[in-house]
Amino acid sequence: MPAILSVSSALPDTLVVLGASGDLAKRMIWPSLYYLHRDGLLPKDLRMIGATRSGNTTDNFRVFLQQELERYVAKAHLSDLALYSFLAQVGNVSAEVNAAGELNTSALQQQLGASQAVLFFLSLPPKLYGPVSHSLAAAGLVNAATRLVIEKPIGHDLVSSQQINDALAGVFDEQQIYRVDHYLGKETVQNLLALRFGNSLFEPLWNAGAIDHVQITVAETVGVEGRWSYYDEAGALRDMIQNHMLQLVALVAMEPPANFDAAAVRNEKTKVLLSLRPISGANVATCTVRAQYAAGNSGGQVVPGYNDEQGAKGGSSTETFMALRAEIDNWRWAGVPFYLRTGKRLQSRRSDIVIQFKSVPHNIFSDHQPLLPANRLVIRLQPEERITMELMSKRPGLDGVQLQPVPLDLSLRDAFGSARTRIAYERLLLDAIKGNTTLFVRRDEIEAAWSWIDDIQRGWSGGADTLRSYPAGSWGPTAAIALAERHGHSWYE
Amino acid sequence: MPAILSVSSALPDTLVVLGASGDLAKRMIWPSLYYLHRDGLLPKDLRMIGATRSGNTTDNFRVFLQQELERYVAKAHLSDLALYSFLAQVGNVSAEVNAAGELNTSALQQQLGASQAVLFFLSLPPKLYGPVSHSLAAAGLVNAATRLVIEKPIGHDLVSSQQINDALAGVFDEQQIYRVDHYLGKETVQNLLALRFGNSLFEPLWNAGAIDHVQITVAETVGVEGRWSYYDEAGALRDMIQNHMLQLVALVAMEPPANFDAAAVRNEKTKVLLSLRPISGANVATCTVRAQYAAGNSGGQVVPGYNDEQGAKGGSSTETFMALRAEIDNWRWAGVPFYLRTGKRLQSRRSDIVIQFKSVPHNIFSDHQPLLPANRLVIRLQPEERITMELMSKRPGLDGVQLQPVPLDLSLRDAFGSARTRIAYERLLLDAIKGNTTLFVRRDEIEAAWSWIDDIQRGWSGGADTLRSYPAGSWGPTAAIALAERHGHSWYE
Repeated sequence: MPAILSVSSALPDTLVVLGASGDLAKRMIWPSLYYLHRDGLLPKDLRMIGATRSGNTTDNFRVFLQQELERYVAKAHLSDLALYSFLAQVGNVSAEVNAAGELNTSALQQQLGASQAVLFFLSLPPKLYGPVSHSLAAAGLVNAATRLVIEKPIGHDLVSSQQINDALAGVFDEQQIYRVDHYLGKETVQNLLALRFGNSLFEPLWNAGAIDHVQITVAETVGVEGRWSYYDEAGALRDMIQNHMLQLVALVAMEPPANFDAAAVRNEKTKVLLSLRPISGANVATCTVRAQYAAGNSGGQVVPGYNDEQGAKGGSSTETFMALRAEIDNWRWAGVPFYLRTGKRLQSRRSDIVIQFKSVPHNIFSDHQPLLPANRLVIRLQPEERITMELMSKRPGLDGVQLQPVPLDLSLRDAFGSARTRIAYERLLLDAIKGNTTLFVRRDEIEAAWSWIDDIQRGWSGGADTLRSYPAGSWGPTAAIALAERHGHSWYE
Repeated sequence: MPAILSVSSALPDTLVVLGASGDLAKRMIWPSLYYLHRDGLLPKDLRMIGATRSGNTTDNFRVFLQQELERYVAKAHLSDLALYSFLAQVGNVSAEVNAAGELNTSALQQQLGASQAVLFFLSLPPKLYGPVSHSLAAAGLVNAATRLVIEKPIGHDLVSSQQINDALAGVFDEQQIYRVDHYLGKETVQNLLALRFGNSLFEPLWNAGAIDHVQITVAETVGVEGRWSYYDEAGALRDMIQNHMLQLVALVAMEPPANFDAAAVRNEKTKVLLSLRPISGANVATCTVRAQYAAGNSGGQVVPGYNDEQGAKGGSSTETFMALRAEIDNWRWAGVPFYLRTGKRLQSRRSDIVIQFKSVPHNIFSDHQPLLPANRLVIRLQPEERITMELMSKRPGLDGVQLQPVPLDLSLRDAFGSARTRIAYERLLLDAIKGNTTLFVRRDEIEAAWSWIDDIQRGWSGGADTLRSYPAGSWGPTAAIALAERHGHSWYE
């Protein structure tokens, strides 16, 4: 039972970042807050408190923050006026976490004395979410207007995520908890929803009748980059498939919600996750491919294999690549494979969702052109955000009707001018401040995802599949190609 | 019964333009032949003979032709080499038509002595098509390899078109007759077919379930331009609706043909024309609007009304504008209005086909945006050839999902570079030379169209509707606006 029975929708008067000098805070949270402040989007007079382990004077913290903002915010966007007025609203407190995960809240209590509505952003390791929440509650810092923002992944399997969520539920109502998946804050991901539900053109085709298969690729060129120990406990399945890619699957596959409210949208997403056909037992070997990068060549440089990375303990069999073939057991998607693929040290950095439509049922131009490529909708999240529709169009000229694919670029930049693409955290922070949970992940979504992931992980642990190797700088092991080709499909390159 | 039982597919060795110094020949036929020659697309050593009333020396005719080509072909495309090698293949004969429409073929006979396969392009008034064809046959100039190219309109009603077609059928097999509607030679019209049948995205939506209505506008800014006497006998209904716009209706509305052969495509087009719900009796007044331009302002100039144009006899009630609301009685299009509108002296020169899709069945974003504009596909034929799809896309930013229509330009220029848009006659001449009748109009299409047009004309003659007036430079009479608005639709501007 949550401690709070009636959640308040009051705007926060104070925002506390715990772990305020960490990597995520420096690169994402503070720059996002700066942009929101500069654009006049934050509540007036919002106090922003950075809580750091050791604590510092406010002046020193502001100097630190200024340096970091100058590093992570483009010069063109850093005006003195905006910067100094922003820093003027920022303070610093010390808030150490002890070995048991308990937070020393004394400085915070003093600072927050008059605050009525506090938004806590826990930029901390997930195992601390529970204990720190309890410390906040014990110090009397939690009320009906408190909001808690935390980052996924929550736990490393169903049981551990349930433990964390249970601990949070002992302090907060589910509606007070904002679980961040920054993929959901991306402009293009939102545009996918706009495209699906704002146009009458797509939804009638958005099903097994017209769609051949769906592909989602999240490819990185980097290796583990000094995070070996952390990464080695996760692996690609937990770090990327569970954490981000299943969210994309849910958004692509969900039924139209009745409205864009949090409950309606998240109900539909959960339904998709619960409809994923379990991959377990012998199916793990046929539906998944796992691999680890060996030494190779990335971006023109010779790079070491995973087990020779800095900080590597060696002998690890953690996967840095995985590909899988999922199916969704419902009317809309019966028989439509969803291919997911992610990896580190791949050939190029690219995240995209590819909706591959079926070929025309009959080619009336077959005399001139025996094969007509099928239509394709490509939603690119990285490196640039873009939506492209590949249509067949007649090649101009007098040689009969010769068709050729033409990429129709639903480029946001072209259509709307060259406005800066917002950082996903700007949107998510603003939504959290406004109390809109639509783009945050609900507990049941997390648990449905883990439940499906655990089956695969169990299969692997049980030896159902062998760990493959791929050279750094490649597109992964050939088995991943075979996974799709076996069913007549090809990865979009 | 046709005189020829087995049509030959042999390529023409000679092309004869009758009426070779007329307006159409100078502006379209000779420049098109020049381009085809320059690009190496004509059969090797094709002889081209211009037949003119008085006749001339070949040298003089070549001088005349050079002058006209220099006038109608852009300088960048006129190389000496191409021009002189072209003119070297051109000759001239005299071929006068007497009062009875009989052609003096003696010079032609002499010139064509050795020709096996002649393509005749009759750039002559339609009433001469029959008599001239008979003269050619009587002179022994017609065989199984002969082709006849003629321009629509054929006749001015069903009976007169049947008479002309009967006369042609006495000399030629239907497969030898190439009836030109230059709209069918336009790149964009072909691309409409490529779009419909080369993509799996559109055809499932191409019906009453997803399409709200269709609009076709052919708007001219010019008046009758010295052709008053000719135009006064035709009017907008015959000159434009019958002649070109019903062909566009047929292409938009036809079922997918089994292939792109002439028979398959023209069978489907005919089915559409036969399925047009007759507009007769009292319906003429509710489904059509006819009007004539009065004096007004066109392109910044004061211009006279139709009955005050040069050459006007005055007191004419011929329509220079008409709008109508058609319906197609078949499964695909039940309940989908096709609005057609055409006129002279309108506000701007523009021809386009607008496929207006239905709105989304339910707006999940209604909290932020009560009204979502529906999708629209705009196929523009004039002044530029372009296909645009209007999609709703999320406006970038943090203010929730705010949708905005984004025009997706299926611009041929962007996709395929800035190649010159071919003249429609280039394609049609080349198809006629190759013996491909797909883009030409078959007799039964013509007659189905006239039959439908005659009902309306009869209604008007019977006084079912009054002739309205509109000022030159406007978008026609308000009654034309009301025609669509009455059913909740608006003309696309």
